[in-house]
Parts: sequence; C-alpha cells; structure tokens
Amino acid sequence: MTLHTAEVVAIGDELIHGAMLDTNSRWLASELESAGLSLQRITVVGDDLAQLSDAILQACRRASVVVSTGGLGPTLDDRTREAGAQIAGGPCWFDEVSWLRIQDYLRGRKRPVPESNRRQAEFPTGAVVLANPVGTAPGFLLSAHRAHWFALPGVPREMQRMVQDHVLPWVRTLPSLQPSVQQLLRVIGPSEAMLGERIAAFMHGGRNPAVGVTVGNGMITIRITGTAKTVALAQQACEATAKELRPLLATWLLYEGAEELHALVVQRLIARQVTLALAESCTGGLLAGRFTEVAGVSEVFLGGFVCYANAAKVRDLAVEPALLAMHGAVSEPVAAAMATGAAQRTGARLAIAITGVAGPGGGTPDKPVGTVSFGLSLDGVVQTWTLRMPDLGRSFIRERSVLEALAAILRSVQA
Amino acid sequence: MTLHTAEVVAIGDELIHGAMLDTNSRWLASELESAGLSLQRITVVGDDLAQLSDAILQACRRASVVVSTGGLGPTLDDRTREAGAQIAGGPCWFDEVSWLRIQDYLRGRKRPVPESNRRQAEFPTGAVVLANPVGTAPGFLLSAHRAHWFALPGVPREMQRMVQDHVLPWVRTLPSLQPSVQQLLRVIGPSEAMLGERIAAFMHGGRNPAVGVTVGNGMITIRITGTAKTVALAQQACEATAKELRPLLATWLLYEGAEELHALVVQRLIARQVTLALAESCTGGLLAGRFTEVAGVSEVFLGGFVCYANAAKVRDLAVEPALLAMHGAVSEPVAAAMATGAAQRTGARLAIAITGVAGPGGGTPDKPVGTVSFGLSLDGVVQTWTLRMPDLGRSFIRERSVLEALAAILRSVQA
Repeated sequence: MTLHTAEVVAIGDELIHGAMLDTNSRWLASELESAGLSLQRITVVGDDLAQLSDAILQACRRASVVVSTGGLGPTLDDRTREAGAQIAGGPCWFDEVSWLRIQDYLRGRKRPVPESNRRQAEFPTGAVVLANPVGTAPGFLLSAHRAHWFALPGVPREMQRMVQDHVLPWVRTLPSLQPSVQQLLRVIGPSEAMLGERIAAFMHGGRNPAVGVTVGNGMITIRITGTAKTVALAQQACEATAKELRPLLATWLLYEGAEELHALVVQRLIARQVTLALAESCTGGLLAGRFTEVAGVSEVFLGGFVCYANAAKVRDLAVEPALLAMHGAVSEPVAAAMATGAAQRTGARLAIAITGVAGPGGGTPDKPVGTVSFGLSLDGVVQTWTLRMPDLGRSFIRERSVLEALAAILRSVQA
Repeated sequence: MTLHTAEVVAIGDELIHGAMLDTNSRWLASELESAGLSLQRITVVGDDLAQLSDAILQACRRASVVVSTGGLGPTLDDRTREAGAQIAGGPCWFDEVSWLRIQDYLRGRKRPVPESNRRQAEFPTGAVVLANPVGTAPGFLLSAHRAHWFALPGVPREMQRMVQDHVLPWVRTLPSLQPSVQQLLRVIGPSEAMLGERIAAFMHGGRNPAVGVTVGNGMITIRITGTAKTVALAQQACEATAKELRPLLATWLLYEGAEELHALVVQRLIARQVTLALAESCTGGLLAGRFTEVAGVSEVFLGGFVCYANAAKVRDLAVEPALLAMHGAVSEPVAAAMATGAAQRTGARLAIAITGVAGPGGGTPDKPVGTVSFGLSLDGVVQTWTLRMPDLGRSFIRERSVLEALAAILRSVQA
C-alpha cells in the first residue's frame, strides 16, 4: 500500500471557462505516480480567490502532497499568492533575492523589466521560495494541515523544470514510499466492450496490479499498474499480468510500452534503414506532422506530398487521370498509384498513401463518409486495403487513418 | 449576478493516471457557461468508488448543477452507477427499455451483443434515465442535496449529444438565469507581462465584464466575459470594454472572435479566391494538417510539400543546390525560393514556405535552435523574414512557426 497520497490543483480562469486545455495535470499525474505517490484527485478552479483558497485547503485536508499550477503570473488576475496568504493567515512578504533574480532573468534576455513583475517576488508567511531558473515566476512550498503544498507556475516548461528541481527530490526523501510502475499494452481492432469482456477477470477493483482500459481515436491502451516494495518487484508483478493478458489479445496487440506509436515507428525505420515517403489526401499533412515531431526522422524521411486536390495527385505523384476518372480518388487503385508515385519520385523504400472521405460532405452511397483507402509500397511491392469507419466526425476519421497508416508501417518493418 | 453554479466531475483512472487528457471538461465548461451557468470547479477523479462518490457528493453540496462524464462503460472498472446507488442510498434497478435500446443499437451496427453491456442498463434508485442515441451508455439524472446531477458517458461524441438533448434544455428552464457572453481579442507580439501591464486597469477582480488573459504557443487571447439580464446587454457590455482595449493593443491585435485562426484564414482565402500552396521544412506538415482540418479548404488548397530533406527542396520546389550551399537551408533566400517553387509548381496565387531549426540538434552560433525563416509569395511578389525564438523546445518552435505563417497569410489577404 502506498502511504502518501497526492492531489493536483490547476488554477486559471482560462482552464475553467473552456478557453484552454489543462495539459499540466496529465504530465504531473504521470510524474507523481512514477515517484510513488498515489494521485487521488485533480481539481481545476478559476482565479476567484474564495474558490481557489477552498480548493487548495480541501486538497491539503485529503492528501499529503498537493501540487498547484498557475496563478503566479505578474498580472492582477493571478491570485495563488493571495490564497497562500489566506491559508497561512498573514500578509505576504517581499523577497528581495527573488526580485533580483527576476530582473536578471529579463535583462539577460534583453527584455524590459515591468514593475508589475514585482508581484512575483511576494510570498505567503512561512513559505519556502522555490527558484524558477527558466522563467520569472518563482514558486513556493507551504505547509497546510498535514500536507505539503507546492505552488508552481502554469507555464508547462517552467512547471516541469521546477517539479524536477524541487518536488521530486523532496518526494524521494519520504519514508515508506512504495513505488508504482505502469506497463502498457496497445491494442487496435476490437471495441472497448469486446475487449472488456475478454479481459473482465482482470478488471475488478482492488487488484494489484490493477488493469484498466483507455480508448483514444481507435487505439485502446490497457494499463497495468503495479505497486510493490521496490520498482523491480512492481515491474515483475506487472509483467506477470501482461503474460496472462497477451494470449487473450492475440493479433489485437499492436505494441507495448509508453512510447508513442509514431516515435516507435521512426525508431524501427532508422534501425532497419528503411527510407520513407508520404502521400496524403484526406489526412492532409497530419501524418507528416506526426512523423516530424520526432527530431531523428530526418535520417529516413525523404519527402511528403499533401495531395488533397486531384490535380496534385496527377502533378506530384504521377497518378493517371484515367485511373482517377475510372475508380474515383478514393479507391485502392488510386491509393496504389499514389504510393508508387511517392516511392518513385523520392526513391524511398517505403511509401504510404492515404485517400478517403473525411466528411462532412463528399460521401456517396457507394463510398460513404468514413471510407478510406490505403496503399503501402515496400521495395516495389504494393499492398492496398480499405477501412470503412462509422462517421464519427472529420477529426476522428483523419486521426484513425493516421493510426491505421502508422500501424501498417510498424507491421511492415517489424516482420 | 448568476444564481446558478455548475461543477464538472470527470471520471476515469486514465484521466487521473496521466494516460489520457481530459478534453470533455473544456467543452462542457464552454457549453454550460454559454447557457448562463457559472462554472466554479472541475474535479477529475479515478474509478475508485470512495473517491468518486465523495467527489460527486462534494460537488453536489457546492453547486446547483453537476455534470459528470465517464464511468458508464460496460467494463467492471466503470463505477459511476455504483456511486449513484451509494448517493441515492439504495440498490440499482435494471431498466428493460434501456437494455432493449442497447441491443438494438449494437445489432443495427451488426455488432455482437456482449452480456457485459447489461450493466449499462442499471440505474440508481430515483434516477431518471437519459437516452443515448449515439452509443450504448445511457446516462441518468439524480437529485442529490439541492443539486441536479447529470451522469453522462465519457466518449466525447456521446457526451456532447446528450448535453444537447438533455442538459441544455433543462438548464434553459431554470428561473432567473443571467446569460454570460464571451468576446475574444487575439494578440500576437508582446510577452504576457508586457500585455498585462498595458491592460492592468481592466484586470481587477469583480469587474463586469471581467478581463482575463490566456497564453498558448505565442498567441495571447484576451477574454472579455460579461454577464447581464439578456444576451444582447451582455454583448453590449463586452463590446464597450473591447472598444477601450483596442487602442491599447494597436498592431498587437491580430484578429477577434472565437473562431480558430486557421479556420478564419481559410474563410478569407475562399472569400478572396486566393489559392494556396505550402512548402514546409521544419514544421513538416503541421501547417498543412491544420489547414485540412477545415473541410472547405479543398476549394483553395492546391498542394503541400513536406520538404524536410534538402534533396526534397531541390526535387519538389526547384530550389537551386547552389543557393542551399551558399546560404544554408535555413535562410531567407532559400525560403523565398521554396515559396516561389511551390507557387510555380502548383499555380497557386499565395505560397508560404517555412524553413528553420526546430532542434534539439542542428543549431549553430549563427543560426541557433529557434531560428526560422519564412517566405511568402503572393501573385509573384515575394516577401521574406526571420523569427528568432528562444529555444522553448521543438514543439513550441514548430507551433509558433505555424502561428506565424497563419498570421502572415491572414494579414496578406485582409489588406
């Protein structure tokens, strides 16, 4: 059993009013759990002082470690410092050292030093200042009830650096912390219900390792979370569960691990020296954009063509106009020609082509919205296939097509 | 003053353990606020029954409307129904009508009917069943304390449909609801602190309309939120504040409104019949992917080239190898040649080229990571410029470059 519980409080009107997605909490959740804390709750509140103070106080009553993000900026709508003063029961104090650091930081970047930044050097009574080496907002550590509250800035890069610098080293000193470990099995094919039935025996509450299921754009992730006295023992427990699950999943299992699929595919392409070209119609650059997230892809990525228009398919990929006229742009013959064209034009060993009806318009009885044809050319051998998805919206169809292409490439280069 | 407060509770181990981003809450926040409710808090909890029941109970104590998402799936780790039973203080009942609907839904899609789906037809005592026309998980409405709790499934498409079908119609019947309205000013250029100083007089708490600031990938959004007796009055109040803000922002103001920048750019291109071609090096398809999110872009989008490799710049965009050798791939002459090449090859009136050092490797003292050159060709007139960003990571540099390109296109076609 883990003895130390954690909560995250994400602060900011922009999070509560729907203008911005809270991505910090997800990152924090992973980090805190990996460090052995048991994350119990994430609370998102606006900049309203009463709401903010209450959310932090409640979290401090429930958990032993509370990490908040946001509300430490220079503008007047940032009120985490005031909430800290309320909780500490005294006024804020001004820290000359922090103020000098803030000025140094801005001057070092040849930026002006607005007076408003002075607010960022104010701290609640009893707070320990946490330096921010990559921004102007220092954080603080305050004890409230029996919890330790780390107040960090909301800018992801600054928050992440301060977790590494301040929060994790402190967490590691906690006694009797039981590390927990996650193992991920990535599945493509069945519905969530079909999969859930197949692995139901593993999903009851209180099991250690726990088994849970997540769905996103057609990919299902099975999470195995084990807690034990050491990381090695927790890993062993997870692997024992994975061993039981794998035969149940059979060919549904695409790959394992926390690595994102596109990063894994790039690794494999580099390891096997398979060069790559892309021909995208309905995904319109999404797949190329995913690949180029990975810095190392330049080693193998010879070129991408966004051939949304038929004229572009003819011009850039040498697809015969007669082929387009006979079969339509969304067809396996055209997908094959696109893949072949991309491979020949770039000299890539592997080329993949995607052409489909992403909607909302463009569907026909024959090829309704959600019909997507794929062509994969590897060393001159071309394979084509078609996916018929329910019309769950343009974004789903495009994302699911990107996933399909990545899965097909992975299978091609691991065989 | 708005009399009705709302809270959102997002449920699922995948959200709390960092495996998945909670995107539902953001959508719900916008919808509930637009309907006139005042959103106070978002809570994210895992599938643990005690935590889940507590989070919902607490929310029901604070707010008058609580909307939960998730925990209604067919698998055993879905426990929102049990939490409802605990809160209602009695066992669940089985609803034959819902079970028939679930079977019809699955059979209509030629899918098997797993017995495990039966769990989705169980409801807490006193709950009103909320039909789900687009999935197998019905929701329910339960009164707890003085709150109305709407339990909805976690699949975004199903949740959204049920908010439209069940939650919003009910909300509209609430007496003395004061609608609130948002107006957005989109700013590019200053730092958050610089902007905050300029508009500090507007950012004090309790102001109506309230003024807040959000930052994301280089774009700053100023949110003006006004509450009044009618939508028209709230809009008037927001516009009065906007009128005062505009002169302070001057050329920083890029555009206004909730519309996303890429969608707005596509609209303008179509309205002015300006055809488009893209030549992307460091952004590697991200810009094309952003454009093709918009279904209508096919009217103007003649082609995109992902020319990550130098060979691709020569092959697809007719960039002279000598130019690459003399100035390097990241340079304004090469950006100009790429834009010209894309325009000539496709016949597009407007072509934009992006070539830069996104990192982590590849930086030089002369062109450090974060140096990105742009070329924009409009009717044969080519303009080039270079952005020197701090190295805030590969993803930031790529996203900021996409934003820069979109902003440049917007300015070109609105002039």
